[in-house]
Amino acid sequence: MRMVDLIEKKRDGKELTTREIYYIIEGYTKDEIPDYQVSALAMAIYFQDMTERERADLTMAMVHSGDMIDLSAIAGVKVDKHSTGGVGDTTTLVLAPLVAALDIPVAKMSGRGLGHTGGTIDKLESIAGFHSEIGKDEFVNLVNKDKISIVGQSGNLTPADKKLYALRDVTATVNSIPLIASSIMSKKIAAGSDAIVLDVKMGAGAFMKTLEDAQELAYAMVRIGNNVGRKTMAVISDMSQPLGNAIGNALEVKEAIDTLQGIGPKDLEELCYALGRQMVYLANKASSLEEAEDMLKEVIRNGKALNKFKEFILNQGGDPSVVDHPEKLPQAEYRIEVLAREDGVVAEIVADEIGTAAMLLGAGRVTKESTIDLAVGLMLNKKIGDSVKVGESLVTIHSNRENVSEVIDKIYANIRIANQAEPPLLVYGTVVE
Amino acid sequence: MRMVDLIEKKRDGKELTTREIYYIIEGYTKDEIPDYQVSALAMAIYFQDMTERERADLTMAMVHSGDMIDLSAIAGVKVDKHSTGGVGDTTTLVLAPLVAALDIPVAKMSGRGLGHTGGTIDKLESIAGFHSEIGKDEFVNLVNKDKISIVGQSGNLTPADKKLYALRDVTATVNSIPLIASSIMSKKIAAGSDAIVLDVKMGAGAFMKTLEDAQELAYAMVRIGNNVGRKTMAVISDMSQPLGNAIGNALEVKEAIDTLQGIGPKDLEELCYALGRQMVYLANKASSLEEAEDMLKEVIRNGKALNKFKEFILNQGGDPSVVDHPEKLPQAEYRIEVLAREDGVVAEIVADEIGTAAMLLGAGRVTKESTIDLAVGLMLNKKIGDSVKVGESLVTIHSNRENVSEVIDKIYANIRIANQAEPPLLVYGTVVE
Repeated sequence: MRMVDLIEKKRDGKELTTREIYYIIEGYTKDEIPDYQVSALAMAIYFQDMTERERADLTMAMVHSGDMIDLSAIAGVKVDKHSTGGVGDTTTLVLAPLVAALDIPVAKMSGRGLGHTGGTIDKLESIAGFHSEIGKDEFVNLVNKDKISIVGQSGNLTPADKKLYALRDVTATVNSIPLIASSIMSKKIAAGSDAIVLDVKMGAGAFMKTLEDAQELAYAMVRIGNNVGRKTMAVISDMSQPLGNAIGNALEVKEAIDTLQGIGPKDLEELCYALGRQMVYLANKASSLEEAEDMLKEVIRNGKALNKFKEFILNQGGDPSVVDHPEKLPQAEYRIEVLAREDGVVAEIVADEIGTAAMLLGAGRVTKESTIDLAVGLMLNKKIGDSVKVGESLVTIHSNRENVSEVIDKIYANIRIANQAEPPLLVYGTVVE
Repeated sequence: MRMVDLIEKKRDGKELTTREIYYIIEGYTKDEIPDYQVSALAMAIYFQDMTERERADLTMAMVHSGDMIDLSAIAGVKVDKHSTGGVGDTTTLVLAPLVAALDIPVAKMSGRGLGHTGGTIDKLESIAGFHSEIGKDEFVNLVNKDKISIVGQSGNLTPADKKLYALRDVTATVNSIPLIASSIMSKKIAAGSDAIVLDVKMGAGAFMKTLEDAQELAYAMVRIGNNVGRKTMAVISDMSQPLGNAIGNALEVKEAIDTLQGIGPKDLEELCYALGRQMVYLANKASSLEEAEDMLKEVIRNGKALNKFKEFILNQGGDPSVVDHPEKLPQAEYRIEVLAREDGVVAEIVADEIGTAAMLLGAGRVTKESTIDLAVGLMLNKKIGDSVKVGESLVTIHSNRENVSEVIDKIYANIRIANQAEPPLLVYGTVVE
C-alpha cells in the first residue's frame, strides 16, 4: 500500500477501505507517514468528504492509536456529556452532581481551558484543596461508591488525533465535518463511556455558525457513535451569546452552585435540563424524557444534587464549605462596572470576543503554558433581549489589576444595543436516531 | 502574512495576490514554509484551480526562485521547443539542426531521460566524443557562429519548481493544470528563450489522456507564456503510440539522421514540420506557416540541415562521420525479432508500456542514478493501421543480453492486433492567441 495512491483515491472521490484508513492512522502515529502526505489527504477529505463507514473507521483507528479507558469495573450505564466548546459553559459543573444524584455513574475525564473557552478542571481547582490527579483504582471506587468523579486527562489517549489536529490547525483543514466529528468522537470513545450526550454549540461564538452546519456536525457524530456501538444523541444549543452570566473559573463555580440550588440563570438551567434529561434517559433511569426532567427537578428541589456536589468536592480533597459559603472562592481585588452608554435593548453579545476579554483579564490561557487567575472574569448583568438604561451596568469586571481599559473597550465593542431585540432560542433541537 | 490563511483563501476559491504567491514560493524555497503546508495548498489548488493571473505569477515566482539564463548576447529571436514527454520522441534531434540551418539561433538546454521517456543529452552522447558540458561563453559563441548548441542543464534553475514537483509527486497533486503549466513554463522561461513552441502530447502514452485535457494544458501554457512576454504557441500531437520507429538512444540518433535526409518515418517527419514551421514563423523568418514549411523542406532537400547536424556534432567534440556512417553508433549484440502470432491490422501500441519495455533493456533510467546502455532499444516495424501477417516482425529488439523474455512478453501484451484499425491523427491542432 502506498500513501500517495490513497491520497489520489480520496482526491478522486472514492471510498477508502477500513484497512486503508488503519494503514494511514497507524503509519502517521508511528511517524512512518509524513505530515505532508497527511495534510494533502486532509485537504482532499475537506473537498471530497467521507462516507459514514469511513468516518466510523477513522474514529476507531484514532481510538486504537493509543490507550482506551476501561470503565467496565464501574456498575451501571456510564453516560458522558461533551460540548463542542462555548463561552461561560458551566453545564458540566452542574450536570455531573445533578445526574450522579440520580445514581447515574459520572466517570468523567475533563480538560483544561485554552483560548476563549474554559476547562472544567480549571474551574474545579478554584475550590481550595480540590485535586483531579486520581489513580485508576480510586477513580473507579469513587464512582462505584458515590457515583461521581472528575479527573484530568491522563494516559496516552488518541495520539493520532492529537497529531492530526495539530496538523489540521496549520493547514486550513480544521473546518471539515468528517474530521471534526471523528476527532471529537475518538476522544469520547477512548474515554470509555457507554453513552454520549453531545452539546453542539451554534452561533457567532461557536465553531458552527449556522443551524445547518451544526445539524450536519451533530448528525455526523451521532452516526459515528451509534455505528461503533455507543448510544449517542446530540442537542443543538445557542452560542450566539455566552451561556449563563459568569465567565471565569471561580465565578462559574459560584454560578453552578446557584444552579444546583435552583437559583441559577435561566438559560444555564434550561440547557442543564435539556442535556440532563437525555443523560438520564440514555442511562435507562427514566422511561420518557418528561419523567427524566421531573427527576432532575426533584433532586434540585430536595437538595440531593447540591449535597452530591459537596460529597464530590470532599472526595477529591476540596473544601465543601464553599458550597454554602461561596465567598470562600477566590475573589478578585477589583470590581469594575461597564455602564450602558445608551438606552435600548441588548441585541448582541459576541460570545467569543467576550470570552477573549475574560482571557485578557487572566481567566483563560493564551497558550498551553499560560498560568491563569482563578478569581478573575466577567459577570454579564444583561443578556440579549434585556432592556437597558444609560448608566446601568452591562457587565461587572472582576479583575486583579486596576487598569482594564482594553477589556472595557472590548466589551463595548462586542455588546450592541438596539431599539428592539428578542432573546435567542436556547435549544434548536435534538438529533437522535 | 500567515501561510495557513493563504491555504484557507485558496481552499475557499479566492484569488491569491501576486505578493502572496511570491511569499509562498520564496518561503518554500528557503525552507521557511514547511512541506505540509505547501502540499495542503497544492491540493486546494487541485480543487479550486488558479486564475490566469495567479498562474503567471506562480510561474514567474518560480523563475525568480533561482538563476535565469541570459541569452541576450545571442543575436536573433531564440525559439525554444518543449515536449510534454513521449516515447520515441526524436523531434529535438531533428529540429535543432533543421531550424539552425535556416539561421535561427538554437540555444538549447536539454535534460536526461527518466523512466520510460528518453532525454536529448543521453541520445547525443551515443555519438563518440560528443559532450554537453560547455561554458556559458563558448555556448554563446557557438550559437552566434553556427546557430546551434545543446548543453546539459546547469546552474540553479527554478529550485522552487524542483522542490514543489518532488512534493507533488508524493501527494497526488501532480495532475493539476495550473501546477503542470507553471512548472513547465517556469523552466522554459528561466532557460531564457524569446519564444516557445510547445508540443503537448496526448493519448494513452502521454500525461494528458484526452484531447480536452491536452487543449486545456496547451491553452494554460500559451496564456502564461504570452502573459509574461514570451511568444508562445502549442501543437497538440498524438502519443497513442510511440513517435517514429526507434526507441533507444543510438537508434533514435540514426532515425534523426534519416529524417534529416528526408527518409525518416512519416509521422516523425510530419511532426517535425508541424513544430518547425511554428518555430520559423515565431523567429520572424517567414511570413506564413506555408512559407516556413517550404523553407524547412528545402534545407532537407539541399542537405543544409544534415550538414548543420555534422557541424553541431563537430563543435561539441563529437565524431561527425556517424552521420554518413551510422553503423559507427553503438550497436547492440543481439537483434531479436518479435513476430506476429496472428494476421490482422495493428490496432494499439501502448506507448508508455513499450517505452518501459525499452527501459527494461537498459535504454532508460529506472532512477536518476541508473546507468544506461546507449546501444539498446526497440525498432517498431509496424505502426497502428499497418497490416500484418503471422510470422512478420512487429518489433526488432536491440539487446546486449540474450534472454529478453520479459521484454517480449511486455511487447506482446501491449501491441494489439485487430481485424481493422485506422492510423491515428498525428496533429490534433494548434493553440495560438
